Amino acid sequence: MTYQELNHQIFQKQSYLCVGLDTDIRKIPSHLLTESDPVFAFNKAIIDATADVAVAYKPNIAFYEAQGPRGWESLQKTIEYIPRTIFTIADAKRGDIGNTSDLYARTFFDPTAAGLTFDSVTVAPYMGHDSVLPFLNYPGKWVILLALTSNPGSADFQRQSVDDQELFELVIGQAQIWADPEKLMFVVGATQAKELKRIREIAPKNFLLVPGVGAQGGSLADVSRYGLTPDGGLLVNASRSILYASSGPDFAERARNKAEILQREMATYLAGI
Amino acid sequence: MTYQELNHQIFQKQSYLCVGLDTDIRKIPSHLLTESDPVFAFNKAIIDATADVAVAYKPNIAFYEAQGPRGWESLQKTIEYIPRTIFTIADAKRGDIGNTSDLYARTFFDPTAAGLTFDSVTVAPYMGHDSVLPFLNYPGKWVILLALTSNPGSADFQRQSVDDQELFELVIGQAQIWADPEKLMFVVGATQAKELKRIREIAPKNFLLVPGVGAQGGSLADVSRYGLTPDGGLLVNASRSILYASSGPDFAERARNKAEILQREMATYLAGI
Repeated sequence: MTYQELNHQIFQKQSYLCVGLDTDIRKIPSHLLTESDPVFAFNKAIIDATADVAVAYKPNIAFYEAQGPRGWESLQKTIEYIPRTIFTIADAKRGDIGNTSDLYARTFFDPTAAGLTFDSVTVAPYMGHDSVLPFLNYPGKWVILLALTSNPGSADFQRQSVDDQELFELVIGQAQIWADPEKLMFVVGATQAKELKRIREIAPKNFLLVPGVGAQGGSLADVSRYGLTPDGGLLVNASRSILYASSGPDFAERARNKAEILQREMATYLAGI
Repeated sequence: MTYQELNHQIFQKQSYLCVGLDTDIRKIPSHLLTESDPVFAFNKAIIDATADVAVAYKPNIAFYEAQGPRGWESLQKTIEYIPRTIFTIADAKRGDIGNTSDLYARTFFDPTAAGLTFDSVTVAPYMGHDSVLPFLNYPGKWVILLALTSNPGSADFQRQSVDDQELFELVIGQAQIWADPEKLMFVVGATQAKELKRIREIAPKNFLLVPGVGAQGGSLADVSRYGLTPDGGLLVNASRSILYASSGPDFAERARNKAEILQREMATYLAGI
């Protein structure tokens, strides 16, 4: 999916909501456990209920991997089921030396490898340029690089001073040498909303993927105020607050309500840019 | 496996060789492709041929993931086949916010999750303490934290100055607050052998996992000189130079020869400590 297509979708749906498909088999409604693939049955219902208010879906790969081969099958079915007009993110936080990163890129981008066709993958920057570049070789595919994450441990290294900037700022600066904003996003946690202003100065055009609104306590108003660009340029993720809004048979309806509340709030911020 | 058991194995076998099971279905001998699981058939032959000269096996997870669910089945069979007296490393370079890292830990450590029982997993440090700690909650299991990697991109961030040290030194220093050497190793690339002396000053007791000898050009003599401790404390990985020593029916025998050459050289360095 192109930068223009993604921004177009944002204005069309009046939404920059990304639904995190962090589907935990221990948390899904019990009536689904009799299905042949409970994780896919849950995801299918969530996708059906939210596809008109979400512009992206982001399965966190850990939730699927922890189920072994069966989890990868649920992931394959889920990705195949998502309408191709909606952006997909493999939240995998991968990164390795070049020939190995190339295999991770094939895994998530090339359907003839692992049967998956994501639009993008999240990548960890610690190993530097040759761990990131292999993901950029796929036309129409995106890298979403970890910059400033939402967890307490982000202070340990990301916030350390390197010369006159913090490490996450160096990461953002370097990465912009590797790729243009047409295929490079950054992860910035919603709990770090006050830093978004500084980040927009060094990355004025890149999409920012912002997790941590909802369960982790970030504010959608703050994130939108500092993160939105005239183009859109923002994806805000919510996972648990949508997926587990109800543990009963009404889970999909309740998930949709939660997603729609976020979408309506987003529409007001889009009206203000 | 305990620190003492691993060091004991090193002196018993006179080896600190880790065989990297980076099994690429495009590179294995063609006569194996008629097997029902060619990757497992290859790994089984390599393990049979090298188990008495290797102290660890390290499958790089990317090679299995790129095969989809089938790849995870090959990985399950491989791990089950490795004798439990030999240390196993899931080279996965994972790391995410706490509740997600916990799922990655379950994937590789808890056999009831994904059917895998590794002794250790490689972890990326960028997200800080709460992305690493969940892996440390499993008794007898190890974290192998990326510190200074063997690839050119290691210069981009790992070698940057933070106060009066380089980032990789800060990572090593911080991580030692999180865990003792009984369950914490560091990855240091063999191409960085001259840095091993500095690393041994700040991590005198931790095992170091050193990839990059062979195909990537690192010197076993240098690595051993600076990396070995009186206890042992070193695992040196070789992958391609062993696995693909021959593409014919003699691949396992040739792999063993390559492994044995490394083991014999290692025995001379162990005699010198």
